Amino acid sequence: MICIFVTGGTFDKTYDEIRGALSFEDTHLQEMLQSGRSRVDVTVRTLMMVDSLDMTDGDRELIARSCVECPESRIVITHGTDTMVETARVIAAGVQGKTVVLTGAMIPYAFGSSDGLFNLGSALSFAQVLPPGVYIAMNGQHFSWDKVRKNRETGVFESL
Amino acid sequence: MICIFVTGGTFDKTYDEIRGALSFEDTHLQEMLQSGRSRVDVTVRTLMMVDSLDMTDGDRELIARSCVECPESRIVITHGTDTMVETARVIAAGVQGKTVVLTGAMIPYAFGSSDGLFNLGSALSFAQVLPPGVYIAMNGQHFSWDKVRKNRETGVFESL
Amino acid sequence: MICIFVTGGTFDKTYDEIRGALSFEDTHLQEMLQSGRSRVDVTVRTLMMVDSLDMTDGDRELIARSCVECPESRIVITHGTDTMVETARVIAAGVQGKTVVLTGAMIPYAFGSSDGLFNLGSALSFAQVLPPGVYIAMNGQHFSWDKVRKNRETGVFESL
Amino acid sequence: MICIFVTGGTFDKTYDEIRGALSFEDTHLQEMLQSGRSRVDVTVRTLMMVDSLDMTDGDRELIARSCVECPESRIVITHGTDTMVETARVIAAGVQGKTVVLTGAMIPYAFGSSDGLFNLGSALSFAQVLPPGVYIAMNGQHFSWDKVRKNRETGVFESL
Repeated sequence: MICIFVTGGTFDKTYDEIRGALSFEDTHLQEMLQSGRSRVDVTVRTLMMVDSLDMTDGDRELIARSCVECPESRIVITHGTDTMVETARVIAAGVQGKTVVLTGAMIPYAFGSSDGLFNLGSALSFAQVLPPGVYIAMNGQHFSWDKVRKNRETGVFESL
Repeated sequence: MICIFVTGGTFDKTYDEIRGALSFEDTHLQEMLQSGRSRVDVTVRTLMMVDSLDMTDGDRELIARSCVECPESRIVITHGTDTMVETARVIAAGVQGKTVVLTGAMIPYAFGSSDGLFNLGSALSFAQVLPPGVYIAMNGQHFSWDKVRKNRETGVFESL
Repeated sequence: MICIFVTGGTFDKTYDEIRGALSFEDTHLQEMLQSGRSRVDVTVRTLMMVDSLDMTDGDRELIARSCVECPESRIVITHGTDTMVETARVIAAGVQGKTVVLTGAMIPYAFGSSDGLFNLGSALSFAQVLPPGVYIAMNGQHFSWDKVRKNRETGVFESL
Repeated sequence: MICIFVTGGTFDKTYDEIRGALSFEDTHLQEMLQSGRSRVDVTVRTLMMVDSLDMTDGDRELIARSCVECPESRIVITHGTDTMVETARVIAAGVQGKTVVLTGAMIPYAFGSSDGLFNLGSALSFAQVLPPGVYIAMNGQHFSWDKVRKNRETGVFESL
């Protein structure tokens, strides 16, 4: 059993056709799991719906506390890519004995040609087999939280 | 470094608009890896392009031999779902000390709302971390080759 | 007010993931009108759901009779491309004083990159402004029923 | 022969994955015509690539002048929906004896489930058959430039 925490990020951005701007509405996670024909036993909980650049220290504390308090020992977190590594650090400081995998997307799922579906399949798979620890799963790869950075110019996650 | 062998299956079916029928042309694998922003170091080789119901014993021998002969010790195989378990058995009989993960799709990638991208992310991830053995990665899960069957009525892979 | 008759064809083909084959289920027409944000006042009626190569003389009589009997004087018919011209001829022989526009698709709407949405927008528009007669709207163009043929090799409708 | 002028608008908005924001790059028009299997004889010219809320009086003068100076007597203009009616008025004041059809989209074409393809099919069709005048083609309908407004709350174009 895997717990999935939704926090927003590009993963879940949508297009508000009345305002003509990007926005957050409901998460696309259930739709994505269905599209992927996933049969992984999951619980989904939306903790917040924010751009990760707007995420506060309080938000990160809430995420870490949710990881500690949930009964599952395997956790996937969908998260904006810009501060994913920062949140991973806060989780690593507060969570013991659980496998936590953060993932996200460069292109919103709602915009068709997305990396979100690929990353979700990847994150769910890593979460099932990796030993306890805090990881980032992006670009088909996994990284320990303290050995990775996002290259802002290419949008790619790289080993430190 | 992961070797990806393409063998066809629903994963790569396309729509022939002149004949008005399903067909196989080139694989969509490179396009899918690009769409997923994959940075996994892979070699892609198309072994055949067939519906897995039309796959012969000779085809399966070729696949197993290709697994033995390739320099990589981690392998992903895209394959039709109908006889995926059968091919896995032939590979298990002939290949030692390598991690081989078979995957596929219920809906062609070319038809938009596909499980193929999700499964590819999943299979590449399992292939990076599972110990040597022959596995099937479908529905976000992994199964040892000898502990799984495809339920023909639901289209879902189930544990034996 | 426009009456839309659905008869099947590539336009509405879908992928049956259990059988791994093309099939017909419900029409996608309402979904397409919604996706196109259409505000045209329409009535939609499914007359049949067949590949136009399987269409019988009886089917064509039913279509022509439906055109005569419906209260609307402007009609759009979705139809398989292979025998669209043949059906147009039967309608032209039996229907007077109405604007009837047949349209279809080379790629199923369900397969993402479809010409169906483009053709539907085109057919609905021609149906609103053309004088009484029987027309085929394909490839962004309109043709009188007796001055067009489908080029089977290119899939394009051409003037005679 | 139809001349298509591209001016930007939601129609052509794309998602900049490095900045995580909406942006304009190249027009998708040729890709859309190809996706629609259009065989209409067209010339495509990009005049500007702007959000219609940012369009200046000078931009509108350029559009009107381009309509006058192009050799074609039938013209389609892709345009943001917010000030489409305003631009239509400027064109109507300056262009005589030509059929000019403005169209746009509520959802960017790049975001998958777009009304842009439907509207493009519609606008090209109206442009082929309507008498000289300046029109707006949205929601499957056509309106004379002086008898329409965009309802900002519903996103729908309505008759005055």
